[in-house]
Amino acid sequence: MSKKLKIGIIGLGTVGTGVVKVLSKYDDIEIVSCAVKNLSKKREVEVPLTDDIYSIVNNPEIDVVVEVAGGVGVLEPLKCAIKNNKHIVTANKELLARHGAELFDLAREYGVSILYEAAVAGGIPIIMPIKTSLKANDFELVAGILNGTTNYILTKMESDKISYEECLARAQELGYAETDPTGDVEGFDAMYKIAILANIVFNKRINLNDIYREGITKITAQDIEIADELGYKIKLIAMAKKEGDELDIRVHPMLVDKKLPISEIKNATNAVFLKGHPVDRVMFTGPGAGEFPTASSVAGDILAIKAEYGKCETILPMMSCNHNIYARQVGIENTKNCYYLSITASNKPGIIGKLGNACAKYGINISYIIQKGTNHDNAKIIVVTEECYEKDMTNMIKELEEDKTAKVENKIRVM
Amino acid sequence: MSKKLKIGIIGLGTVGTGVVKVLSKYDDIEIVSCAVKNLSKKREVEVPLTDDIYSIVNNPEIDVVVEVAGGVGVLEPLKCAIKNNKHIVTANKELLARHGAELFDLAREYGVSILYEAAVAGGIPIIMPIKTSLKANDFELVAGILNGTTNYILTKMESDKISYEECLARAQELGYAETDPTGDVEGFDAMYKIAILANIVFNKRINLNDIYREGITKITAQDIEIADELGYKIKLIAMAKKEGDELDIRVHPMLVDKKLPISEIKNATNAVFLKGHPVDRVMFTGPGAGEFPTASSVAGDILAIKAEYGKCETILPMMSCNHNIYARQVGIENTKNCYYLSITASNKPGIIGKLGNACAKYGINISYIIQKGTNHDNAKIIVVTEECYEKDMTNMIKELEEDKTAKVENKIRVM
Repeated sequence: MSKKLKIGIIGLGTVGTGVVKVLSKYDDIEIVSCAVKNLSKKREVEVPLTDDIYSIVNNPEIDVVVEVAGGVGVLEPLKCAIKNNKHIVTANKELLARHGAELFDLAREYGVSILYEAAVAGGIPIIMPIKTSLKANDFELVAGILNGTTNYILTKMESDKISYEECLARAQELGYAETDPTGDVEGFDAMYKIAILANIVFNKRINLNDIYREGITKITAQDIEIADELGYKIKLIAMAKKEGDELDIRVHPMLVDKKLPISEIKNATNAVFLKGHPVDRVMFTGPGAGEFPTASSVAGDILAIKAEYGKCETILPMMSCNHNIYARQVGIENTKNCYYLSITASNKPGIIGKLGNACAKYGINISYIIQKGTNHDNAKIIVVTEECYEKDMTNMIKELEEDKTAKVENKIRVM
Repeated sequence: MSKKLKIGIIGLGTVGTGVVKVLSKYDDIEIVSCAVKNLSKKREVEVPLTDDIYSIVNNPEIDVVVEVAGGVGVLEPLKCAIKNNKHIVTANKELLARHGAELFDLAREYGVSILYEAAVAGGIPIIMPIKTSLKANDFELVAGILNGTTNYILTKMESDKISYEECLARAQELGYAETDPTGDVEGFDAMYKIAILANIVFNKRINLNDIYREGITKITAQDIEIADELGYKIKLIAMAKKEGDELDIRVHPMLVDKKLPISEIKNATNAVFLKGHPVDRVMFTGPGAGEFPTASSVAGDILAIKAEYGKCETILPMMSCNHNIYARQVGIENTKNCYYLSITASNKPGIIGKLGNACAKYGINISYIIQKGTNHDNAKIIVVTEECYEKDMTNMIKELEEDKTAKVENKIRVM
């Protein structure tokens, strides 16, 4: 029998507990210690505990540090682990998106591997396939539904015809959304994940500050209903697209044509779509979060290290990061999109004319327009445009809203 | 710069040509020679040719043999390559399904790797994800649409409301089906692929002769139309399911509920669905064939070997085959299924009663029945049953057809 792989775990929340359960069937993997904040809290699994994270990263007996605590507070301990020549398995999207460059540079220096299959799209294998089986591809696009909470909320808003607020409250009750839902509903979580995907798909380092991000809090039940009538679903889409030498990376809600498979992704399911040459189009779908699906990816990474440990000069050389050039990222104002606009206007003659004129002035073609009767003093107008620059759309809206007779309640881009 | 990886290619058809094109961008991979049957045929790519396959597998300069010729005729040359310590990359599903055991045993003996991402589902990464990222899972099911030609035919039969024969002729004109379409339309191709998947998903060797196989040639435009009315699509499904200690592996057409994502897979697209613990459900979709998608997988395997070549004791240890126990496979007669039956009956009183009695005798519950008017002397009856044993269904049909007043034109299982 080969030597036992000895691991230390940082964090014993939902994911950490799942990892301990899944690893219990492997006789040749030993959990030496697990760092937690609260030693007296009751745990579902039995494992040696410590509240000193450094007793793990400095433990010479430990081969692999598994970090499932989350947040950027683990940066220094993980750097210490790398300097102690330990391999790292992490599910921490924020840490990698914010400090990946530093960590991967250090890992290269010390000849250790950082694996992070669980950091993006939970149980769906996506990091390793992109870096191995799909390695020969030049990609032009990676896009997906990368946040289960928001997809759950949007799905329920549609099926139950309820408001965002009501839906969020329900999701919180069911444990699908956190007490402070900001990270999910404002698109931060999806932003971290698309930054990580863009990094490996385009072999460039990504500046988080240059990613355009917009959440789902402004989406109304009416937007979803009208989109449905027009043949679309509303989804929070994270995407990174090659535009010449630049990358267009963003997270925002989109109207997705019902004919596109990604429109069919329901509830907390995640999906990652890739387009490139020579493979053309592939899509991966599955559970984006949860104790066991996330543990599946964490355990897969641990087993991958186990398989090569002590047998290879460099463990999993394909998984290393060998690029250090930052991408040039396109600002949202310079992107071209089709738009859905939901407009409330004073119910006076001339508003349609004004809208038409404003669009014409900025070269925006309207592909669909409907005024759905009037409600007291107000008219509701829905517009779908052909492709135009975001900056032209911004200027058009400014002009339309100038004299306060019309207000664009929502502007949603169309996929 | 690291040492060049030297490869020899067997076969320069569609896939081989794609592989040569894709590899052309890698300075550190050299195609030493390519074996073809016809040296004088005009080729799209420039590469040193030979008509002596053994000059490749015996060439001491070559590190990796890439086999994209297909068929079982390459078995002996590949065994020779392995004995010469060359790694193998192959897209050959028939070879692996029929002679995989022998090849993998030999590869283990000689310490070389056999990679075959392209053998199943073309460009979709599926072999490596199952063997790496999803390694910690105990699977209960793998199912998919693994043959693009038949899915193309079924999709077109539905959209254009044409017969199987007309559709096949069109598919042949467009190059989607071969002149002799048997391998595709009778389910052989899908059978090889599900045998390979079952092998790696359940870690058992599979006996091809024990796989139940049925093609799509009996499916009529009317079956597709009626299925559509009932809320189903008809798809050629390949699946392998754990049933206690046994495996239930088969390929046959199925009525797939339109609510299931796999029902949405259109044209030549492939899909692979997996269910297991801890990951739960994941699905991979993409192009199942074609010059470039297949080359994407072949090139990915070559790059994976390249990354570890000369650096690891064993190259890609996770991809090796370490099981040698044959699965016990369930015979189709002992499987439980729901059934769609299309019955033609003499238009005389009593047939519904006879059908009901025959079903009752074998404990088969009818969940749906419709008689769609009568046509001259005949009545058309459509039945959907609840789950029952295949052997009971077979006996029921025998009894129903006994006095020749009724004939079951088609029996299609329901997913």
